Amino acid sequence: MTVLQADLTWTGRRFARNQQVRIEDGRIQAMGKLGLEVDVRLERRALLPGFVNAHSHAFQRALRGRGETFPNGRGSFWTWREAMYQLVESLTWKEFKSVCTHAFTEMRAAGITTVGEFHYLHHLRDDDYALDALVIEAAREAGIRIVLLNAYYNTGGIGAGGAGVGSIGQPLTGAQLRFRSKSVDAYWKQMDRLDDAVDGDLVRLGTVVHSVRAASKGDITVLHREAKKRGLVFHMHIEEQKLEIEQCERAYGLRPMQLLLDIGELDFGTTLVHCTHTDPGDMAVVRGCKARACLCPLTEANLGDGLADLASVGPSCLGTDSNARISMLEEMRWLEYGQRLRRMERGALRDEAGEVAPSLLRAATETGADALGIKAGRIEEGCLADFVAIDLDAPTLSGWTDETLAATLVCGAAEEAIADTCVGGQWSA
Amino acid sequence: MTVLQADLTWTGRRFARNQQVRIEDGRIQAMGKLGLEVDVRLERRALLPGFVNAHSHAFQRALRGRGETFPNGRGSFWTWREAMYQLVESLTWKEFKSVCTHAFTEMRAAGITTVGEFHYLHHLRDDDYALDALVIEAAREAGIRIVLLNAYYNTGGIGAGGAGVGSIGQPLTGAQLRFRSKSVDAYWKQMDRLDDAVDGDLVRLGTVVHSVRAASKGDITVLHREAKKRGLVFHMHIEEQKLEIEQCERAYGLRPMQLLLDIGELDFGTTLVHCTHTDPGDMAVVRGCKARACLCPLTEANLGDGLADLASVGPSCLGTDSNARISMLEEMRWLEYGQRLRRMERGALRDEAGEVAPSLLRAATETGADALGIKAGRIEEGCLADFVAIDLDAPTLSGWTDETLAATLVCGAAEEAIADTCVGGQWSA
Repeated sequence: MTVLQADLTWTGRRFARNQQVRIEDGRIQAMGKLGLEVDVRLERRALLPGFVNAHSHAFQRALRGRGETFPNGRGSFWTWREAMYQLVESLTWKEFKSVCTHAFTEMRAAGITTVGEFHYLHHLRDDDYALDALVIEAAREAGIRIVLLNAYYNTGGIGAGGAGVGSIGQPLTGAQLRFRSKSVDAYWKQMDRLDDAVDGDLVRLGTVVHSVRAASKGDITVLHREAKKRGLVFHMHIEEQKLEIEQCERAYGLRPMQLLLDIGELDFGTTLVHCTHTDPGDMAVVRGCKARACLCPLTEANLGDGLADLASVGPSCLGTDSNARISMLEEMRWLEYGQRLRRMERGALRDEAGEVAPSLLRAATETGADALGIKAGRIEEGCLADFVAIDLDAPTLSGWTDETLAATLVCGAAEEAIADTCVGGQWSA
Repeated sequence: MTVLQADLTWTGRRFARNQQVRIEDGRIQAMGKLGLEVDVRLERRALLPGFVNAHSHAFQRALRGRGETFPNGRGSFWTWREAMYQLVESLTWKEFKSVCTHAFTEMRAAGITTVGEFHYLHHLRDDDYALDALVIEAAREAGIRIVLLNAYYNTGGIGAGGAGVGSIGQPLTGAQLRFRSKSVDAYWKQMDRLDDAVDGDLVRLGTVVHSVRAASKGDITVLHREAKKRGLVFHMHIEEQKLEIEQCERAYGLRPMQLLLDIGELDFGTTLVHCTHTDPGDMAVVRGCKARACLCPLTEANLGDGLADLASVGPSCLGTDSNARISMLEEMRWLEYGQRLRRMERGALRDEAGEVAPSLLRAATETGADALGIKAGRIEEGCLADFVAIDLDAPTLSGWTDETLAATLVCGAAEEAIADTCVGGQWSA
């Protein structure tokens, strides 16, 4: 048993003083004014729940600073995807492991204690699934908690035929062969093999269909159903690009989100990544099912996706996605700032008390934990003992008060204000 | 004489190896493969010109994390201005000096070697101009080069009357009295007094009219003309908010930019801050005069101003403005990212070679120096010896090559990658 006390502790709504956190077996047993002897006094520190990065492709960290030249004129998500495919074709297992370890290490320095790794680059060759275990190893080495969101990727694009031919997807080509799930059965066989790596706490699994581009409606249906049966969360990329919506409408007569809703299985365990161009009516139904969106402001800006309308998208979690930059603080402020630019007004994500910072911190902690199906993201009894310690002497925070610290951090600081992180009761410094 | 050599040196277009920089009397005397003995070998460093922050209100650093709650519902630039006015009314000279020194120190840590301080908070009481000297002192203490862009602020708003009554501005009230220039004569008298503080190198002056809200058309005309005569740069806030445009049209029958163009004096020495909602036709005329815009992406997002269209605004300089966050690297990437979000395509600010990073670095260096009328922002003969040294071992830069370093830095890093800064040949570390 360890009792922690920082100068300030985040309650989910505000920073409070004189709070003690009792930790046992990597979990929080109690939090509050406990009157216990303090084992670890974190001086000049404020304690936040560890950030939860709900959507990452760690290997894409290798593209940082690449794919940022446009010799043939303006680029797009699709020209960037070509650069990503080139990387995929060239990556050796050693490079793959190294870039994943590096990305996860950078995440911890950015206050991230759990990553939801949306993993679709499976094979070195011939459906060998050699890279799946490497991602888990990389996370262990970096000391980050991982939910391996293991992706089903079966088709190279939505069927090119007319309406009703949608179930016939395009064949995988080139780099995409490294993503392949041959069949739903093959997918679950590999999930069963990966199950041995799960230790309940540090490594967990989740189910992913990459996108409506990568699977037929039938396959999405059975995968979502089986995930639910197994108690696994379900994630999917959706409506990041208008072209995907157009192609889906052409093939199925439905927008991607309508197609998903048509399956009729969305629930609290479902997280839909991006929803950049989702119709407000569709989104209202998604929210009614208790499913949620995951937004990735830095990546969506870098890729020129556009700005989702959070008035309809609702409370979301956050992901560092392409890892072109890894900064949950920058993701948080630009989640709000994107809406300010879109609406030309301030305070877009304000809560009932009119505050913005608690909503943004919630996106980076609680909502991410919900999306990954883990009891984390809160400094509360029963939650994983994952924390970020904020350096109250960081010059970028100077001028803070108990009331303004959260907004000062979210608007004004970056990784220099993060003193340390803790995963399951273990501090990194 | 000192000869510097880093691993990589920025030429304005790319990073080159084996470059030596010869410095004498705080200026660069030569740059290139000089074949000289190296005095200072900067190992594992890349050398950039010091960043030029072309638009700052240092005292607003005190608002960081404040004015981010919205108990009465959504906020706007105008509700934020009320919070800023409250700060203005309460600031003592000691607090003012302290917050300015802190902001300038934070700027140096962010790679900024020159600040254009758009200074309008002049008085402690009764037109005493007590705060002007304090800003200069604060800059000296922080070791930052300053161009004091000293502001004329004479009216509290554009005249409320009908068209043609525009020259009768509203009286200053409350906090605004601390900004007051009683008359154009009083303004130049104070500029003459400040001239004693100018040392040609570390402290210079520039002329400012705060905005069309703060001065009549007649006063803007004579101030711009006199600034030109004295060889001073001229800056003005313009068209950040649609309301300003509407009020100006009502009073003068002209948009603020049309009013400025009507004066007919815009030139290379003129910098127009924001231009968020400027009409493309007006902007084309501005560019034809060789005047430029200054954009402040972080502040314009924080304040919910909206996104300017850089296709019409053209090459701009950058400012940290409200200093809610001080990061030229974040400003640079969001200058490009804002356009990517606006146009839903990538590579908005690409140059002829299709590269984005050199354009963004130019905005943060050369164009800022042009806006402030100083020979800086370039590692070239005759320029001030102001540098940023980049830490090539920063984990956020890992994976860089000579070709990708600039984009890796601009897209993927923040202040942790800045090892040191140099002003006039003096390194801070």
